[in-house]
Amino acid sequence: MPLTGNLLIGQRPVTGSRDAIRAIDPTTGQTLEPAYLGGTGEHVAQACALAWAAFDAYRETSLEQRAEFLEAIATQIEALGDALIDRAVIETGLPKARIQGERGRTCTQLRTFARTVRAGEWLDVRIDSALPERQPLPRADLRQRQVALGPVAVFGASNFPLAFSVAGGDTASALAAGCPVVVKAHSAHPGTSELVGQAVAQAVKQCGLPEGVFSLLYGSGREVGIALVSDPRIKAVGFTGSRSGGMALCQAAQARPEPIPVYAEMSSINPVFLFDAALQARAEALAQGFVASLTQGAGQFCTNPGLVIARQGPALQRFITAAAGYVQQGAAQTMLTPGIFSAYQAGIAALADNPHAQAITSGQAGQGPNQCQAQLFVTQAEAFLADPALQAEVFGAASLVVACTDDEQVRQVAEHLEGQLTATLQLDEADIDSARALLPTLERKAGRILVNGWPTGVEVCDAMVHGGPFPATSDARTTSVGTAAILRFLRPVCYQDVPDALLPQALKHGNPLQLRRLLDGKRED
Amino acid sequence: MPLTGNLLIGQRPVTGSRDAIRAIDPTTGQTLEPAYLGGTGEHVAQACALAWAAFDAYRETSLEQRAEFLEAIATQIEALGDALIDRAVIETGLPKARIQGERGRTCTQLRTFARTVRAGEWLDVRIDSALPERQPLPRADLRQRQVALGPVAVFGASNFPLAFSVAGGDTASALAAGCPVVVKAHSAHPGTSELVGQAVAQAVKQCGLPEGVFSLLYGSGREVGIALVSDPRIKAVGFTGSRSGGMALCQAAQARPEPIPVYAEMSSINPVFLFDAALQARAEALAQGFVASLTQGAGQFCTNPGLVIARQGPALQRFITAAAGYVQQGAAQTMLTPGIFSAYQAGIAALADNPHAQAITSGQAGQGPNQCQAQLFVTQAEAFLADPALQAEVFGAASLVVACTDDEQVRQVAEHLEGQLTATLQLDEADIDSARALLPTLERKAGRILVNGWPTGVEVCDAMVHGGPFPATSDARTTSVGTAAILRFLRPVCYQDVPDALLPQALKHGNPLQLRRLLDGKRED
Repeated sequence: MPLTGNLLIGQRPVTGSRDAIRAIDPTTGQTLEPAYLGGTGEHVAQACALAWAAFDAYRETSLEQRAEFLEAIATQIEALGDALIDRAVIETGLPKARIQGERGRTCTQLRTFARTVRAGEWLDVRIDSALPERQPLPRADLRQRQVALGPVAVFGASNFPLAFSVAGGDTASALAAGCPVVVKAHSAHPGTSELVGQAVAQAVKQCGLPEGVFSLLYGSGREVGIALVSDPRIKAVGFTGSRSGGMALCQAAQARPEPIPVYAEMSSINPVFLFDAALQARAEALAQGFVASLTQGAGQFCTNPGLVIARQGPALQRFITAAAGYVQQGAAQTMLTPGIFSAYQAGIAALADNPHAQAITSGQAGQGPNQCQAQLFVTQAEAFLADPALQAEVFGAASLVVACTDDEQVRQVAEHLEGQLTATLQLDEADIDSARALLPTLERKAGRILVNGWPTGVEVCDAMVHGGPFPATSDARTTSVGTAAILRFLRPVCYQDVPDALLPQALKHGNPLQLRRLLDGKRED
Repeated sequence: MPLTGNLLIGQRPVTGSRDAIRAIDPTTGQTLEPAYLGGTGEHVAQACALAWAAFDAYRETSLEQRAEFLEAIATQIEALGDALIDRAVIETGLPKARIQGERGRTCTQLRTFARTVRAGEWLDVRIDSALPERQPLPRADLRQRQVALGPVAVFGASNFPLAFSVAGGDTASALAAGCPVVVKAHSAHPGTSELVGQAVAQAVKQCGLPEGVFSLLYGSGREVGIALVSDPRIKAVGFTGSRSGGMALCQAAQARPEPIPVYAEMSSINPVFLFDAALQARAEALAQGFVASLTQGAGQFCTNPGLVIARQGPALQRFITAAAGYVQQGAAQTMLTPGIFSAYQAGIAALADNPHAQAITSGQAGQGPNQCQAQLFVTQAEAFLADPALQAEVFGAASLVVACTDDEQVRQVAEHLEGQLTATLQLDEADIDSARALLPTLERKAGRILVNGWPTGVEVCDAMVHGGPFPATSDARTTSVGTAAILRFLRPVCYQDVPDALLPQALKHGNPLQLRRLLDGKRED
């Protein structure tokens, strides 16, 4: 499929009329064809009207139909072949193997949600049978299921052009829940977005679904983004990006006559705690693992380890020295966009200028534009506790080591942290008690707690939590990765004494979907 | 236990220092002793500090311990005996039998949550086992459970002095989830609140829990209420009351450096749809049932049927005539407070002044202050569709009949409604197809759909949904009645490769809590 530069409003390609968006090859700085003319408020309204028109039919598709649709999207994405890989590579500067891996992950994610949809546990069916003889009042027949919230606005992320973009986690989970999706493509990879958008639209057509189930828009955040979040037919928002971008969407969503939920994944520095015995036993190995996680993909991960916390002393010094060596040896890597590169430069300049942060070393210089050199800084716990600027996220391969005088100061630093996606503990057997003492704090601070691993790399599975207290996300009650993400786009409805002829399949007396329902307080077998 | 007029900060009675709050006997207008001096920001801070100090310990109490605590609260409330009933009757003007029933419901609710806590399904345990041999990358061991959000602010409601107040649904579900609770008592029933607060505090002591698990404050919404929602240690809010009150709390919660969820149950007019065959077959019986629901408790229920929608014609006329007769015969009833009474008077005056609403009749005049006379109005669908004022909630026994020309207009009216707690269908066999056509709209509009019943009366059970799209509530994804309410106060945490010694009980490899966990995509038996 050739790139057209068109918006996709349902099945209809439409040419925008606002300023042109052009991808940039970040390795050269050259702009790429075609131009994507930005959409207008009118385009947003058209896409939302189609989504609304599709909603009632789509949310009542059978579990099997919806699962097949998700699988068809995966198949259509795979059918794009190398054209998708090549375009994503040139638009992002990411290595081909990474993009291939990300495509695999994206398709697996869609198929995993298909399995979740079929299993039907997300319907959370609860039945309390009628008790006509109960005194003093009879009990009605009460049946609860989950229904889809409504059309969902999804904002593509810059750093995962496939897995957190047009057909990424937010889209997959919303479609799985029964919500039509209107995507605003990220301006950094419009061609990749168009290809994937065409694949989704093809799957919509192939599955005989109403066209409004999916639309794809380009344009400015200020015009298209805010219009989308403000449209009365949109009932929830999925976003991955900056704290300022996420907060702007939250404010727009709250300012509506009918406020709606926003799932914004925003800002996390992913603290790593190095406990004493582990640090003494393997400071150099920890440094190697840490720098590998820090510099992977030029550090452009939400779960990048931007903070290391440990007790000061010779072992921490060994760690810093070894980490500095690995950082120094590291080749520069192309960042995703000129904007991300300049924000990274500004972030490390602010740390370098901070009188309480000491710059230890930086990675190799690169050639060409947008070259990320990894950076390592050190500070003392007192300074970290006193200066909120030291826990501002620097998106990229920069990290700050916080040296603490004792366990109590480690605890204070942990308690002082903002909400996080992850918290990592490096520990040996002798550290278990210290770790146990810190766990309650970390449970309050983070969505995922790891032991002896590194936070980058997020598994798509049932147990994953990619979320966490503010500002990691705008809503800590959910996850944006893993099958539990389907729960974000649902709400409960109770049916009281509704005759079988009117009950939805999930609630009918004969249990035609063979669900394990909660029946009179007991789980059915 | 004598009434003291004191705040309860943990186990400590404290005298407030702001304007005195005194209950009023609404049947006489006389003020009641003792005076409750309002709390200050400092009292709020003290209660929140205690709640925060209690949080880590309380959220990790065993399921059995927490269930026993909920049961102990119920037992302590029952032990208050007639003192509680008498005080609630005098503070609310509600009949003794109603208050006795409400006490029963409140205690059953606590015990129902105890059962839910013990069953442990709310922990939603999900495990993905390690796959060390997986290619290209091994999978870590990943385990998810739900943890409590943090201390919760609960605002007592005026209209359920027990079941939606100090130890009502919000408090019970938050405590069940593992969240300490700070209650702001409703100023209409401070004595009832103090008695119940003493019962809860007694249960805290008896169960050996940290005192900060529960505090009870009095004071103004503007000072104590906003300070409570703004306190950084409060992590969620439960509220039942007016739309303006709920929205003020939502705004305060969003304005925090760390925004928090607000579960505000606010405004609903609970449409009742009378279908043709049912209306023709039993217009008079429907009128009787309707007026009984409308006038129960002077209409002071969130689920009061404030709107009736039907096709115009002789059958609807029979319904209106019969309903008018029942309304006319109805005795006046004392409303809860002078403020609620004057708001009711203003609401029915606005309807009476509306050129498109016709006042049909009103109930008997009463003696003494705060006497609610039921009111019935009629309007045409065109007018209803044109004037948003016609769907403003009038809290009390007033209802508006909307006459429609045809099924399509019924659908338009339904589609035009704001979000609702309930939608009721009165139908016969011949109406099934018409009802089926309307159901998708109602599922989008309401949290509970009833057939051939009346919306007042909310069962506390697993399947209940007392919630709905805005403005019925500020968060349609949940319910404030029924066991699913526990889910409002939880968030997921994932544990990756955490050694068994550090895992919480629910996630340990040996499954000591014998939960039915989701293990590698399959539900354990």
